[in-house]
Amino acid sequence: MSAKPGESGDAYRILDRTSLPAYLAEIPAVSDLLGPGAELDIQEIGDGNLNFVYRVSNSSDSSKSVIVKQAVPFLRMAGEDWPLARDRMRFEIRALSTQGELVPNLVPKIYHADEEMSTVVMQCLDDHIILRIGMIEGVRYPLVAEHIGHFMAETLFKTSAWSMGSIERRELMNQYTLNTDLCKLTEDFIFTFPYMVHESNYSNPATDQWAKENIHTDYEYKRDVLIFKELFVAKTEALLHGDLHSGSIMVNQTESYVIDPEFAFFGPISFDVGKVIANFLLCCTSHYHRSGGAEYRQWLLDQIPVIWNTFESRFLALWEQAGESTMLANGLLSDDEQSRFRSEFMMNVLRDAAGFAACSMARRTIGIAGVADIRDIEDLEIRSKLEIFNLKFSKRLMAQRKTLKTFDDLASLIHDNYSTPVL
Amino acid sequence: MSAKPGESGDAYRILDRTSLPAYLAEIPAVSDLLGPGAELDIQEIGDGNLNFVYRVSNSSDSSKSVIVKQAVPFLRMAGEDWPLARDRMRFEIRALSTQGELVPNLVPKIYHADEEMSTVVMQCLDDHIILRIGMIEGVRYPLVAEHIGHFMAETLFKTSAWSMGSIERRELMNQYTLNTDLCKLTEDFIFTFPYMVHESNYSNPATDQWAKENIHTDYEYKRDVLIFKELFVAKTEALLHGDLHSGSIMVNQTESYVIDPEFAFFGPISFDVGKVIANFLLCCTSHYHRSGGAEYRQWLLDQIPVIWNTFESRFLALWEQAGESTMLANGLLSDDEQSRFRSEFMMNVLRDAAGFAACSMARRTIGIAGVADIRDIEDLEIRSKLEIFNLKFSKRLMAQRKTLKTFDDLASLIHDNYSTPVL
Repeated sequence: MSAKPGESGDAYRILDRTSLPAYLAEIPAVSDLLGPGAELDIQEIGDGNLNFVYRVSNSSDSSKSVIVKQAVPFLRMAGEDWPLARDRMRFEIRALSTQGELVPNLVPKIYHADEEMSTVVMQCLDDHIILRIGMIEGVRYPLVAEHIGHFMAETLFKTSAWSMGSIERRELMNQYTLNTDLCKLTEDFIFTFPYMVHESNYSNPATDQWAKENIHTDYEYKRDVLIFKELFVAKTEALLHGDLHSGSIMVNQTESYVIDPEFAFFGPISFDVGKVIANFLLCCTSHYHRSGGAEYRQWLLDQIPVIWNTFESRFLALWEQAGESTMLANGLLSDDEQSRFRSEFMMNVLRDAAGFAACSMARRTIGIAGVADIRDIEDLEIRSKLEIFNLKFSKRLMAQRKTLKTFDDLASLIHDNYSTPVL
Repeated sequence: MSAKPGESGDAYRILDRTSLPAYLAEIPAVSDLLGPGAELDIQEIGDGNLNFVYRVSNSSDSSKSVIVKQAVPFLRMAGEDWPLARDRMRFEIRALSTQGELVPNLVPKIYHADEEMSTVVMQCLDDHIILRIGMIEGVRYPLVAEHIGHFMAETLFKTSAWSMGSIERRELMNQYTLNTDLCKLTEDFIFTFPYMVHESNYSNPATDQWAKENIHTDYEYKRDVLIFKELFVAKTEALLHGDLHSGSIMVNQTESYVIDPEFAFFGPISFDVGKVIANFLLCCTSHYHRSGGAEYRQWLLDQIPVIWNTFESRFLALWEQAGESTMLANGLLSDDEQSRFRSEFMMNVLRDAAGFAACSMARRTIGIAGVADIRDIEDLEIRSKLEIFNLKFSKRLMAQRKTLKTFDDLASLIHDNYSTPVL
């Protein structure tokens, strides 16, 4: 496979187990880390939707290891016929570097970035697993919710116009405007195809029937999805991770790392917030059937207020410390008025996060990229009951989002929904 | 004055009457137009806020003429101490070219564009005058409202995500992200300083007192201004003219030309719409004192529905013809649903346009760059009555914008306001 026409990279080639050792040997920092001249173990990991991800380690000392991630010029999960500019790796590298400055303890270290090869070599998180996998297995991570809240507050506030100057902010934004292919992917797969008949959609007979009767014909719901699509397309509020779900977070009992920011772009703050909340809800739904039972479901739901409260309080604290910004000049609002303005702002983030969570729940249920939490359930009838439960809640969240006044209102809505028997 | 540090342009120099002839003589297309070797008449024109604008003509045949516009690396109206990247001319040239493709009869022809000199040489509109000047004098232009509506519909719809593909749209947006200085100027002078005590503001004692009591202390109003500032800063909906007021339109009885798109950037559609409406209202206020009287005030008010209706019907027609777009995939909404969605969309544009009109009326009244319509009135007490009338209507528009359901609601609000005696 050669590079996509229009991409320069003459030197670009897709790396594999055979070619990786020679490639890595030429990078002194990486070679030193793995042990110069060492025999290497190479293992392909990752979900394989978009990229190749390898864990490479010293055969005689597995603790000497790195992750190699390479973008290929097509959508891997759809096949080579679906081109996707490997340019996206450039944006991932930029985002990892910006986030690395803002929250160094919550993102992996980069050892080597190679834009021509669309490849990054980074810290291997051997002591961590993907949060989604841990949550499917019913494992509790006491700090992950706080870490996620902190990650969002720092990265979103500090790249927003409430923190950055107008000009420096547009200059940062300019580094991400051309992350076009992945934005288009989100527009199609989160905000369009799941709500209509489309060949890319997942299929499960009872769920399909329900969607046909309750999604495809519900104007208000589809209209609201389009309103959130507009927000996604045209609200350049802050530098988003852009794909912040439980598959993009690696955890253990004490640490969390947010990975894979290749979807990074300037978008609405509430998109990251809503997506992460939706993924806790989706997992909670799955535990009606999984081994975790009521107690683990409760643990999952309990994480949502921790995520929100950490995010909100840290965001507000940063805002209070920020002093004058282009958006809020000294002397425009009194201290009391500022505090009132901030509360109203956070309420709007919450409402929009509920809307984005509604979109995420629906698309992860009936769109192409379902979550393993639900899709791994083999019994199609049970799975369908859980899917319809998700879709019903998506509609309820969407319809009621504008009535939310505080986070407690959202918490009640979630509590009501997850108190009902499902299976 | 040398170029601003960081701007390359070694060849850049500020042109003046003395150096202009030699500069133009070296451009064959322009030299041919003016008559090779001809003696030239050079006249400085324009409002002088930002740039130098010259009319250059053949001394023996004044019909052979061009306009030369050059950006200087500071804010002219504030002096050389206020730096302003002359980069802005690059964005003006791009916007003139995009708009020239979309509405060739409504923008001036470009004869020569010189990015290094931040200079453009373009069609001289000798048979036209600045709309603001004509309206101050009480002249009626039977077609200008239609032309403005048409200009906005074509340029705004066709650069929106309802028309363009996601990827080509981000590529176009990328050409404007760095028009940073002029965006910052709007953020400061339209959305910030006028609503607080600021050295840049205009001063007229009775108006100052009213603003102190009714603007500086009105949280809801200032909050709403901030909401519109957020929209301006972070809603990248379409390629705006960015400064569409009666000073940016040249007219006669049959033609209109929209000039000066140096503020062009991706922003909210409603910003252009609201600004243009505000400028008709401001002029209408001024005619309580000017010679036009009640009949001319009525003519001015009558233009607003023509602008809106032309804009709306053309925008909707383009939308219906556009077929499938990234934003509205075939099969997502039925025909009836699409038509309902479009109506709701236009209602939101109207509401936001009312909010932006409110901001424009206030800033043009108490901010640094007042309109000549009002500022040229010499009697400070009369002027102040008109200013307070504008500010009151700004507040009313802002407060009531969310109740607007159709354009007629806005028309009634305007009619009520302008039916009361003012002086």
